[in-house]
Formats: sequence, C-alpha cells, structure tokens
Amino acid sequence: METNTVNQQVSAPAEMIISPEALLEHWQGHRRLTRKVIEAFPEDKLFTYSVAGMRSFGDMAIEIMDMSSDGMDGIITGQWKTINEMDHITGKSPLKTKEAVLKQWDQITEQLNQNWQQLPPERFLEVELAFNAYEGKIIDSILYFIDNEVHHRAQSYVYLNSLGIERPAFWDRF
Amino acid sequence: METNTVNQQVSAPAEMIISPEALLEHWQGHRRLTRKVIEAFPEDKLFTYSVAGMRSFGDMAIEIMDMSSDGMDGIITGQWKTINEMDHITGKSPLKTKEAVLKQWDQITEQLNQNWQQLPPERFLEVELAFNAYEGKIIDSILYFIDNEVHHRAQSYVYLNSLGIERPAFWDRF
Repeated sequence: METNTVNQQVSAPAEMIISPEALLEHWQGHRRLTRKVIEAFPEDKLFTYSVAGMRSFGDMAIEIMDMSSDGMDGIITGQWKTINEMDHITGKSPLKTKEAVLKQWDQITEQLNQNWQQLPPERFLEVELAFNAYEGKIIDSILYFIDNEVHHRAQSYVYLNSLGIERPAFWDRF
Repeated sequence: METNTVNQQVSAPAEMIISPEALLEHWQGHRRLTRKVIEAFPEDKLFTYSVAGMRSFGDMAIEIMDMSSDGMDGIITGQWKTINEMDHITGKSPLKTKEAVLKQWDQITEQLNQNWQQLPPERFLEVELAFNAYEGKIIDSILYFIDNEVHHRAQSYVYLNSLGIERPAFWDRF
C-alpha cells in the first residue's frame, strides 16, 4: 500500500496565472489608451505627420486594427488573410479621417468582446498558422498583436512630443 | 437522487491560459530584443542622443532595469523601494557606458530566472502595493513592467531611425 501511495503522487498540472477574461481586459485597457492617443492627434496630422522618416501614426493605427481584427477573424474562423492582403500593406484602407478611424476602432472593441465568447480556454493553447505564415500558439499570436500595438503607440508618443502635444499617461487604461 | 445530481453540477473553475514559465519566456524574449537595441546604439549616443526633447535611450534603459530588478525584488521580499529611490528618478545610476549597461542587463536576466523559482503560481494572483504606491495583483505589476519596456524600447526605434541605424526586427526575440 505504501508503494501504491507513492505511485499515486503524480505531479499536479502547472497552475496558470492569466485567465481569458483577464487577457481581454488587459488588451482592451491598452486599446482604451491607444484610442486616447488617436483622439489627441490633430486631425490634419494623423495621416501626414511623422518623425525620422517613419510612417504616419494613422498608418500605424490601421496596422494595429488590421492585426486585431483580421487576426481575431482568422483565429475564430480558421480563414486567414495573408499579410499582403491587409489594408496597411495594400495601402487601400478606406479610412482617411480621425472620425472614420475611431468608428472602426470602436467596432473592433465590440468584435473582440464577441470573439472572446467564441474561444474556449483550451483553444488559446492550440497551434495555428497565423496569417498563413506564422506558426504558434494562439495565445502567443494574441500577445504579439497586443505588443505590436504598444510598440507603435509608443512611437506616436514621440510624434506627439515633437508636436508639443501632451501625451496620455502610459498607465491610463480606463 | 436526480436533485442531488443537479446540485453537484458546480461550475468548473475558469481555465487559465498562461503559465508562469510561459510568462517568463515571453518577458525574456522581449529582454533579448531590448538587449539587441542597446547593442545597436552607438556608444557615444546612448546617453546623449534623443528626439523631440525626450530622454536618452540610456536613461530609459536604466528605467527598464529599475522596474525589472527593483520590481521583482519587491515582489520576492515584500520590501519595496519607493519610486523616488529608483536610479532613473534620482539620476544617480552608476551606469555610464554601454558595456556597464549590458553587464547589469545580463545580471538581471539571471535574477529574473532565479526570482521565478521563488514564486509559486498562486503568488501571481495576490495583491501587493507595488513600490508602496500601486495596488494590484502581482501578475498585473509584471505585465506593467513588460509593457513599459516595450513602450520605451519602441521610442528608441525612432531614435535609431533618425540616426540612420537599422532597427532590430520587432519579432526577433531569440
């Protein structure tokens, strides 16, 4: 019996530390901050202004929305756009004004909330070929979408500073 | 008996999607990229060059290291520095060269690996008053440290571009 007891001491599965709901809230918090940065940009600078020869923040915002929306569409449906079909690569986005960008931004906010209801927790750990190009776990693709947003939004902070416009506080995710 | 069966159908706990080990690997991946950005910076520009009147990337790198090292020290020991005691605020960091920054960077890489061995999974979900000022779950403090690193590193990409220096690829976390 002692021997059996020892054999039954199998390792518990590693405990996890972030739930799907917490990840969604983390992302939407970042998205609320990015929305404030878009709002802070002068209308006439959003698609024209840049620093150091880089893209406009409007173009970066379209990339952020492409990654979020097309990325989650791919995860939910299994039908992926390729990178070359995305608006920020084709340059064919119909969004030309701050108002149009913010409207699409808010639609994606709702889309993500709905997408989450279609994703059972175990799905996050499955492997997909994101955009038919990048193989990895779904959780890692989503972290990449979020990090890519933080990365480009941070570059827009340099743009805002060079325009003499106050930058929204980095911790303000409300 | 039917009634009992119904009563026993309690909800399963929400499944989680990120393990401590996956979070550490995610962070260290970002830290490998940030290290490449520090290496890409010319020695004579690291603490002197900036764009739009912002801080040098050297100063930002000290902030990133403060948050990582002092932050994890606080989480492990329960003894927190206040914000005003941190090197990037006092301006009293002894690090003045790229070599010294990289040496400390690598020490923190090891520190984080060791810190993780002292953090049981349930600890990530406990609430702490980080830096005696910011109340939140430990997992959220750690995500903040990582996001803060991505944010400032992204600003250095604008600096590198304005210097005409090739930026390490954002996806390169190896």
